[in-house]
Amino acid sequence: MSQTLITEIGEFALIDRMGEVLGPAEDDSVLTGFTDDAAVYRIGDGRVHVATTDALIEAVHFDRTFIPMEHLGVKAMAVNVSDVVAMNAQPRYATIALGLPNNVSVEQVDALYRGLRQAAQAYGVTIVGGDTTAARFLTLSVTVIGEADEDAIVYRSGAQPGDVLCVTGDLGAAYAGLKLLLEQRQLLQQEGEDYDPEDLSAFQYVVQRQLAPTAQLGIIRDWAERGVQPHALIDISDGLASEVHHVCRQSETGALVYATALPIALETRDAADRFREDVDLYALFGGEDYELLFTLPEDQLDRLDDTTFVAVGEVTPASAGVRVQTPEGDMVDLESGGYQHFGGDGME
Amino acid sequence: MSQTLITEIGEFALIDRMGEVLGPAEDDSVLTGFTDDAAVYRIGDGRVHVATTDALIEAVHFDRTFIPMEHLGVKAMAVNVSDVVAMNAQPRYATIALGLPNNVSVEQVDALYRGLRQAAQAYGVTIVGGDTTAARFLTLSVTVIGEADEDAIVYRSGAQPGDVLCVTGDLGAAYAGLKLLLEQRQLLQQEGEDYDPEDLSAFQYVVQRQLAPTAQLGIIRDWAERGVQPHALIDISDGLASEVHHVCRQSETGALVYATALPIALETRDAADRFREDVDLYALFGGEDYELLFTLPEDQLDRLDDTTFVAVGEVTPASAGVRVQTPEGDMVDLESGGYQHFGGDGME
Repeated sequence: MSQTLITEIGEFALIDRMGEVLGPAEDDSVLTGFTDDAAVYRIGDGRVHVATTDALIEAVHFDRTFIPMEHLGVKAMAVNVSDVVAMNAQPRYATIALGLPNNVSVEQVDALYRGLRQAAQAYGVTIVGGDTTAARFLTLSVTVIGEADEDAIVYRSGAQPGDVLCVTGDLGAAYAGLKLLLEQRQLLQQEGEDYDPEDLSAFQYVVQRQLAPTAQLGIIRDWAERGVQPHALIDISDGLASEVHHVCRQSETGALVYATALPIALETRDAADRFREDVDLYALFGGEDYELLFTLPEDQLDRLDDTTFVAVGEVTPASAGVRVQTPEGDMVDLESGGYQHFGGDGME
Repeated sequence: MSQTLITEIGEFALIDRMGEVLGPAEDDSVLTGFTDDAAVYRIGDGRVHVATTDALIEAVHFDRTFIPMEHLGVKAMAVNVSDVVAMNAQPRYATIALGLPNNVSVEQVDALYRGLRQAAQAYGVTIVGGDTTAARFLTLSVTVIGEADEDAIVYRSGAQPGDVLCVTGDLGAAYAGLKLLLEQRQLLQQEGEDYDPEDLSAFQYVVQRQLAPTAQLGIIRDWAERGVQPHALIDISDGLASEVHHVCRQSETGALVYATALPIALETRDAADRFREDVDLYALFGGEDYELLFTLPEDQLDRLDDTTFVAVGEVTPASAGVRVQTPEGDMVDLESGGYQHFGGDGME
């Protein structure tokens, strides 16, 4: 039997195949499965639960030598809460599956637990159960279950031509932080134990964004208070370009992104300058910012707190494709790919 | 800071620490967390959901060279459904987190998905979502969510002195299957590629119990039809002795197990004979049978289908400890430890 390497088809195709082979849900309590940030199922009385699971694996998603264990706990919780938030739901419960190599100490495990607890408390999540097992590489798999009214759920698929494309916070910072940490690791490897690590306090923000990101729960709570509900919503985990493509694919629309409108922090610009790279590429393709991308009709924008988001483009008919207007004014196709645009020097 | 190796404290202590550090649930919708097979939380109208998560990791829980990928999918689903069944709840939804090394083919991933689908259909589970990522070792983490009436839930903590201690099916078979598979692997390693694998068809049952176990969903459905509800319930994943200790610890009781009453299949006896080992030790300490251990007052036993279980002992006051009566009639303390009693030649 001929065998196909998984690297030939990539992660998104593997998830698509999972959805295809496992088949469409026959259970009519299930509202959505593989095509959104989290699965949605009815629990009765017009309420739904949303469930999402994401694993962080050593040597793939993180390097234990430079992420403090508490931050790892914070990050594992944040990335899953972010998927629940991206359905416009409130996170409620979490379970943890932990794979531990022998060279992890009990004190390190306790620090990991403290990070998980700290993040869980910050998001109002109760950690209800867990499993630990041996493993060759540290593996941290978290499932978060959230709750919402069925009508409050916002899918990727609701974008409409004419909607404004908006993002919260700023973009590219987590990638800038990763670049700086990888540089330090390389120098440490080159120069050995005598290497005196550089003071990165001028880059504290971007490093923090990489090591201990925050899910944007405050944003959706603010929307609920204001009675605002976006047409489409997704969290920015794989880079803005990738998420715009997801929304356009599910909504059967196109989109136009204005590169000059991308929100970028000063430290992120400084980091890109240091590496002599184009900071717009960090903002378009750098992953792990865990901000939100959402679409809304223009006449509803003034109901939002204008300090919490910026408009970065517009939703167009599908026939117009997914494009970006460069700072020079050129209109070019926006590729969806993230890290690989940067020459593959990321962690994955 | 002094560091303690995790191997010094062991898996159960690590889960206890997780419960301690993450703190008792402050959310009053949470009925139980770390102290049972699955977490239980209220969803309204007297109904609860139960959630459990368990990971299978290559080189720890399985050897890819001898478990077919479809069986791996079946097993990953079964072990999680078994935890839901052990709360006396019906499995409903599952999410999958898959870590894939580069040397896994797309065809193998499809086979894994087919196994997951086959098991999900058999148990009435809808796979609602999934995540795939790169990994150094194949990692399959499954979360299953089940549903029940709140008063149908059976905890580990309900055993009462005088209850009969019962088990479904037979014990030790999965361990016997593991021993045979490990023997074949060793011969293959010693004799190289020319090794002609032994025909194991005389041991088909025990090998199947190891590679593709079954969760006992039929048993709890039968109980529901008969209006029977055990006092205490747990699934037998780490060996009978370990599970008896869990029930006694949570119920604050002791127990007495009769070694002569242990249900053991003929093939399991044949396998133990082949290795010149004591088959009672397989039944007491061999893991992964995924049968159920439950306790019930003696006068309710006749309401059960007597082809589905055997009485293996009784629940005693805590002061009597956890003991086993050997075939010779001696009363000895029953240790909880499983695999390590066998000299550590298991997979974990």
